[in-house]
Amino acid sequence: MNELRTRYDVVVVAAGEMPKSSLANCILRNAAHVVACDGALESLLLQGIEPEAVIGDGDSITPRLKEKYKSIYHQVDEQEYNDLTKATRYALSNFDLGEKPAFCYLGAMGKREDHTLGNLSLLLHYYTHLHIAPVMVSDYGWFVPAKGSDSFASFPHQQVSIFQVDCKQLSSVGLKWEIYPFRELWQGTLNEAVGDCFAIEADGTYLVYRTHQPK
Amino acid sequence: MNELRTRYDVVVVAAGEMPKSSLANCILRNAAHVVACDGALESLLLQGIEPEAVIGDGDSITPRLKEKYKSIYHQVDEQEYNDLTKATRYALSNFDLGEKPAFCYLGAMGKREDHTLGNLSLLLHYYTHLHIAPVMVSDYGWFVPAKGSDSFASFPHQQVSIFQVDCKQLSSVGLKWEIYPFRELWQGTLNEAVGDCFAIEADGTYLVYRTHQPK
Repeated sequence: MNELRTRYDVVVVAAGEMPKSSLANCILRNAAHVVACDGALESLLLQGIEPEAVIGDGDSITPRLKEKYKSIYHQVDEQEYNDLTKATRYALSNFDLGEKPAFCYLGAMGKREDHTLGNLSLLLHYYTHLHIAPVMVSDYGWFVPAKGSDSFASFPHQQVSIFQVDCKQLSSVGLKWEIYPFRELWQGTLNEAVGDCFAIEADGTYLVYRTHQPK
Repeated sequence: MNELRTRYDVVVVAAGEMPKSSLANCILRNAAHVVACDGALESLLLQGIEPEAVIGDGDSITPRLKEKYKSIYHQVDEQEYNDLTKATRYALSNFDLGEKPAFCYLGAMGKREDHTLGNLSLLLHYYTHLHIAPVMVSDYGWFVPAKGSDSFASFPHQQVSIFQVDCKQLSSVGLKWEIYPFRELWQGTLNEAVGDCFAIEADGTYLVYRTHQPK
């Protein structure tokens, strides 16, 4: 069953809107490894959490902080990837992780909307090409990529959206409105869980969004 | 030249994160028509603006407000479309608008990320199927859909992202990094304007995001 955990192999903290909920705090404190994009270091420290590594191109960090944390700071100047990808690749290269490690992304949504959109497409990219099990969490809800048929933990009246990527077949059990292979992303929004789980049958990849609170 | 204006035929205000900038305030005050989704009425009134119409299914408004504004409240219970689309269709049916009217969406991003993603796909849908010229503005930046070759106002170091939809040819002049027909959305992010305009050559549809501030 696909559900939100409180313990992840790696938590990557990016410089978007940092979730303030106790859930996000719990995820941070239970993480096996915490990696921060450099623009997120300050807000992470304010939460009393020191990451194991800080990754960035040095553009988004003050010289003072960079000097203070130089022992864990890893400057990656390469321009093709954003800080989220640099942090993910750093974790995959430097930590002893098992097969299909569970990654949780905090602060990867909110603020600049082009970053949010780009990071959501990266979530799919990491899932497909880096073979990790990623989730992206905000104070409103969370995204998880999935492929093929799967079941998802829910609660009655939980708000659910399904964003399909390349499915030709797509159907559901346990959602208020039956899903189908939507042609446009908005068609998968505004759904709702009926009970404590729902199942999706699909022949391709899709993103599932679930809210933390009922409507 | 494609640029952000301060006067739109219709401004639709949705219940996401309401922009607080003086630009957003200016757009609201200069609008020929303001339509609010019902969940946005309260924050709009707090800004001292009374919309011409309020649209919704009645789920997101207090009975007191609904009663007070009953003369402009239009309840649309239909489930296929969200409030943003209901408001857009209301404006198209009830206002005397010219050809390809200019619509500005405020509060259509931020808060629930599935709404943001859905609303961005609706921006493309309205552009293509409802034949309007829409923009979606937040305090961070703004999205505009475009098709084929076009030129875009910019300023040096303005942050730019191009999200392509169905282009097989895509190139640019005036951006720091040449664009190409990206396969994944993240590949179009993190670009930057060099001067006071940039041009895009394309054979299909794409979204352009520009920030209000330089990096």
